Amino acid sequence: MTLTAHEVDELKAAPAVDGILPAVHRRWSAQAYSDRAVDEGILRKLFEAARWAPSSNNEQPWRFLVGLRGTATHDALMKSLKGFNLAWAPKAPVLILGVALKNFSSNGKPNGYALYDLGAATVLIALQAAEMGLNTHQMGGFEKKTARELLDVPEEYELGSLMALGYQTDPDELGSEQLIAQEVAPRTRKPLNELVFSAWGEPATFVK
Amino acid sequence: MTLTAHEVDELKAAPAVDGILPAVHRRWSAQAYSDRAVDEGILRKLFEAARWAPSSNNEQPWRFLVGLRGTATHDALMKSLKGFNLAWAPKAPVLILGVALKNFSSNGKPNGYALYDLGAATVLIALQAAEMGLNTHQMGGFEKKTARELLDVPEEYELGSLMALGYQTDPDELGSEQLIAQEVAPRTRKPLNELVFSAWGEPATFVK
Repeated sequence: MTLTAHEVDELKAAPAVDGILPAVHRRWSAQAYSDRAVDEGILRKLFEAARWAPSSNNEQPWRFLVGLRGTATHDALMKSLKGFNLAWAPKAPVLILGVALKNFSSNGKPNGYALYDLGAATVLIALQAAEMGLNTHQMGGFEKKTARELLDVPEEYELGSLMALGYQTDPDELGSEQLIAQEVAPRTRKPLNELVFSAWGEPATFVK
Repeated sequence: MTLTAHEVDELKAAPAVDGILPAVHRRWSAQAYSDRAVDEGILRKLFEAARWAPSSNNEQPWRFLVGLRGTATHDALMKSLKGFNLAWAPKAPVLILGVALKNFSSNGKPNGYALYDLGAATVLIALQAAEMGLNTHQMGGFEKKTARELLDVPEEYELGSLMALGYQTDPDELGSEQLIAQEVAPRTRKPLNELVFSAWGEPATFVK
């Protein structure tokens, strides 16, 4: 065995900075999921966290379609997977499709923050999952048309990500060398001075 | 005095559910900010949390323009405020404009998750701020054209929210009755059975 799931978790944790929310450091996007089902009480807590996300005009445009293994919704989401994600995501015991209402419910006008707010609510699911010892992996690589049709998602809703959720397993169970290499590769991020400016292109003093 | 800032914080905390990240419960969008400046070390931590957000293809499309009171960037962001936000947001010691690169840097193709991922990174700033005793309030109500022009934001970037950041003060300092009433109004959210489905429109068993 190359590494255990626990060792991969240690490897993937972001370099700890004192005072940063531990769940932020611990959250990463695994591909090796075990068969272990996720309790309903735990699922409820993940969405409870998402529910309190901020949103434009408090519209709360987010809706989540949750497929538990063995259900028609899980099957439909598996059928919507494509490319590389087919190699690992079907094993996840839970697949979640996030969608956002395109227009404000108060006046029918386009909500330019629908996807933005869905992204915020969804990352709270991921953080809460990390806090509870689960892992999540959001995918953009799926057939949106297929998912919409198979799941009867109304046109009024825009599709966000398809998220795999479950408990990690040892990377060797992924079977392919390429997948195993990805699973144990270090996480990388741009440095703060490329992201945080005091004027356009000018790093803020506190990130220099 | 109606209520102190601390009493408002108690009032605004979401109903605690055991095991939910405390920062999720504590985060809310205040309008009453004190003059107190935010230390550079604290600012750095807020963006450190954002940096580890997930993103499509790990593009990290987010960039943040940070205006500290007294700088040209803070002035420009104040000039971009409109409507109701003019009544309170100028007092915030820090104003932050989030923007997202529209196309993938690897191949120049449109990134349909640019705003979605910006929303995720930005809510991590808000959570980390809540964790550290600060408050944030994101606004969509600002003149995007003005902000873009005054701050030289290139066309390749899409604008997200304008965020006020600072320490809360007592709601009475807002001065107007309407603002004070908003500040002390309870937070509301849709129930989980309107948001989480097992099939379209069908609440998942675990939220019934």
